[in-house]
Amino acid sequence: MTVPWNHHHILSLDQFTPEDYNTVLQTASSFREVLSRRMKKVPALQAQVVANLFFEPSTRTRSSFELAAKRLSADTLNFSPSTSSLTKGETILDTAKTYLAMGADIMVIRHKQAGVPSAIAAEMDRLNSGVKILNAGDGQHAHPTQALLDLFTISCVLDPENPSISALKGKKVAIVGDILHSRVARSNIWSLTTAGANVYLCGTPTLVPKLFEDFLPSYPYGKLFVTWKLEEALKDADFVMTLRLQHERMSDHLLPSLREYHQYYGITREKIKLCKESVKILHPGPVNRGVEISSDLMDDPRLSLIPDQVTSGVAVRMALLYLIGR
Amino acid sequence: MTVPWNHHHILSLDQFTPEDYNTVLQTASSFREVLSRRMKKVPALQAQVVANLFFEPSTRTRSSFELAAKRLSADTLNFSPSTSSLTKGETILDTAKTYLAMGADIMVIRHKQAGVPSAIAAEMDRLNSGVKILNAGDGQHAHPTQALLDLFTISCVLDPENPSISALKGKKVAIVGDILHSRVARSNIWSLTTAGANVYLCGTPTLVPKLFEDFLPSYPYGKLFVTWKLEEALKDADFVMTLRLQHERMSDHLLPSLREYHQYYGITREKIKLCKESVKILHPGPVNRGVEISSDLMDDPRLSLIPDQVTSGVAVRMALLYLIGR
Amino acid sequence: MTVPWNHHHILSLDQFTPEDYNTVLQTASSFREVLSRRMKKVPALQAQVVANLFFEPSTRTRSSFELAAKRLSADTLNFSPSTSSLTKGETILDTAKTYLAMGADIMVIRHKQAGVPSAIAAEMDRLNSGVKILNAGDGQHAHPTQALLDLFTISCVLDPENPSISALKGKKVAIVGDILHSRVARSNIWSLTTAGANVYLCGTPTLVPKLFEDFLPSYPYGKLFVTWKLEEALKDADFVMTLRLQHERMSDHLLPSLREYHQYYGITREKIKLCKESVKILHPGPVNRGVEISSDLMDDPRLSLIPDQVTSGVAVRMALLYLIGR
Repeated sequence: MTVPWNHHHILSLDQFTPEDYNTVLQTASSFREVLSRRMKKVPALQAQVVANLFFEPSTRTRSSFELAAKRLSADTLNFSPSTSSLTKGETILDTAKTYLAMGADIMVIRHKQAGVPSAIAAEMDRLNSGVKILNAGDGQHAHPTQALLDLFTISCVLDPENPSISALKGKKVAIVGDILHSRVARSNIWSLTTAGANVYLCGTPTLVPKLFEDFLPSYPYGKLFVTWKLEEALKDADFVMTLRLQHERMSDHLLPSLREYHQYYGITREKIKLCKESVKILHPGPVNRGVEISSDLMDDPRLSLIPDQVTSGVAVRMALLYLIGR
Repeated sequence: MTVPWNHHHILSLDQFTPEDYNTVLQTASSFREVLSRRMKKVPALQAQVVANLFFEPSTRTRSSFELAAKRLSADTLNFSPSTSSLTKGETILDTAKTYLAMGADIMVIRHKQAGVPSAIAAEMDRLNSGVKILNAGDGQHAHPTQALLDLFTISCVLDPENPSISALKGKKVAIVGDILHSRVARSNIWSLTTAGANVYLCGTPTLVPKLFEDFLPSYPYGKLFVTWKLEEALKDADFVMTLRLQHERMSDHLLPSLREYHQYYGITREKIKLCKESVKILHPGPVNRGVEISSDLMDDPRLSLIPDQVTSGVAVRMALLYLIGR
Repeated sequence: MTVPWNHHHILSLDQFTPEDYNTVLQTASSFREVLSRRMKKVPALQAQVVANLFFEPSTRTRSSFELAAKRLSADTLNFSPSTSSLTKGETILDTAKTYLAMGADIMVIRHKQAGVPSAIAAEMDRLNSGVKILNAGDGQHAHPTQALLDLFTISCVLDPENPSISALKGKKVAIVGDILHSRVARSNIWSLTTAGANVYLCGTPTLVPKLFEDFLPSYPYGKLFVTWKLEEALKDADFVMTLRLQHERMSDHLLPSLREYHQYYGITREKIKLCKESVKILHPGPVNRGVEISSDLMDDPRLSLIPDQVTSGVAVRMALLYLIGR
């Protein structure tokens, strides 16, 4: 494959052009085809080392990256903070430089503080190391691979054979939940609006401040709206993305109770009658069943795209590792 | 190899026929031969993904499965509960479905609650996923791979070149210890009696209730006895299997002290004089030296089969992964 | 390669001859060349199993060994004490024997107690197992792979094309810090003096007892000195190796404060003016920036060999695994 690609690192999506999104979608699509074969591996990154530095633990996302790397024939190293030098006072940059010196070619980085992947990328560039950084989630800032797998999932619904962003033009996507604390929402806002979709952010006033309407610069593509009324967000929606509700929001006094949250903002079979009949539901996982979404809706294969998102995750991460690592 | 095999999952041994056991023994025997070569790997499961979901941690069993999978050229994913979504409230079935969606072909599952592997298998079947489940120990219910490796170990003592269950017919096997809480004992009861051996369960009345004699339905093969007298269990025994004593049994008030336990039920050089002269000792590990078994006996290579059990474990797990995964 | 090599295990360096060191340096040098290629793997240890038994956790050293093993095409098993049978009362020797029975060919062992790798090696030999033991750090006793990678790093500075110990003859190496508790210092004393370098140990009287001058038997090669004055250690030094300061030394009442330690024994740009102009700084990592060494000095690529040490670590560990495992 000879595809155009200008991103050395993948840190956030605010610099991604429509062409970049289409490149990711097409590359992921070709890897999805590889994953449907009996022999699911390709030698693309043979002998390259992918270091998964998950300062914030996550089995789900780490496994997805690990499998993507293995299917590209890369070797993987997993850094686990609980058994690490971090407890010995080493700085994060020094940890990253240690993996650089060991020979890592790509570092996949997750950290609970926003900006850590960017800081490591800047240091790697300053050292002329050639190492590529993939942000696997940093604080409330960005989670680009999640947004790209969401985009791939949606694109495949709209045009399974030839997924591209053109199919998203004018579609309505509701993102419901704790937008304020969500890196998933922030990255999806960039990708979905650049793809031409109109995005409705919805949740309680404490979790979805009005100022999110100014999140984007004036923008030639899709539009962004904030609403606190679920009905307004769901009305004629093509896709509904619910977000995970962190239990600590209750102790933060941002929410009264899970039951009340579910009553007002939980997605149920009754409520989605407001959406288009072809509506599909997404959730980045892990799900609190009966809170963000009712259990029966989550398990309905005609409505829920949740398993597709996980499957897309491996293909999209293979695509991203390939695009920056080849 | 073209061997008959009807089990999609391996959850417990109560449906295993004598032919099934022989298929496992013969397949394990051929992999044991592979493991004696310089090149110990075969490409049987290349590009297949074996996900080890150990909700109850166990380095020993996980390493054995991981090595078996690697020697079949499969890729492995390890799920570790301490860094997992479980702490975020995700259900066990949702965790399994995440690994399904990622592309796992076989899931090896251990959980402290009985029934979890079966529940996951049922869900995988309901979804027509094709995924195979291997129970690596669930609560006090079953530990089929341990019983099969014990059977292989015993069969190899009786007929090293051509291990089969026919050699066990009429042999006496004593299982000594905490039968009540032991999934190892329960699985061994099925396999050993189906192989035609007579099994004596022995321990304190609190740990070996009389009702275990009704554990089996009326059965055409070996017989099952319960006794609280060690002498009766050891008399003319061909094999003695001691079980690990959990320290919490003391705080449960089921046992007075470790020292008293060892005096009455610990296996020693003196006590095994009651057994056949060719007697061999087994233990599923990890061993409390000086409690279930005296330290010198454990280290005597003429008597102890404990290292053979661990070695058999890799060959038997290769056989099982191969039989369900090919 | 046909190189002479007599060490079945690598437990400490006190039996290493000058020829042994040169064999390690030459073998590491050839693997360094492999690591500079696009295809960084060799099939030297294909299908061999390297078990990393890190009873004392260390992401950094374990990752280095894991990568070295993978680049030799070995399979790796990682033992993690937190999820292990150790909490169930199993002895360390029994844990090692379990990995032996599973089929491990080489065991890499780290333990906070001195002597554990040797005890396991003795047991493996008693059992005629053929298993090789590599000490990855035991208590305050020895850390041979760290000393060998330090030696390789220094040799490559002195003669990049053909690293050998002959270049170290008469060089002055200062080792500064908590010598008393350092296995890194003890192993470096053996390797550096055998290579012909003169070694100056320096730190507070509580951390560098005078009796260290008797550490070596009368010795035909380099000399060993103890001094509590940093000026004396640094004067005309060719290499300065600072050691990590464990924070618990303060609560042990061996040190007044980190700030005072840095003032007297921390390596700074000002202090190294006493050294030779070509001086280079080493540190085994992880570093407490601003304690053992000033932050700007650590980041100066003309002075600091810290990244080179990490890179050397992979090549040297490949060499050692190859020499004992081929």
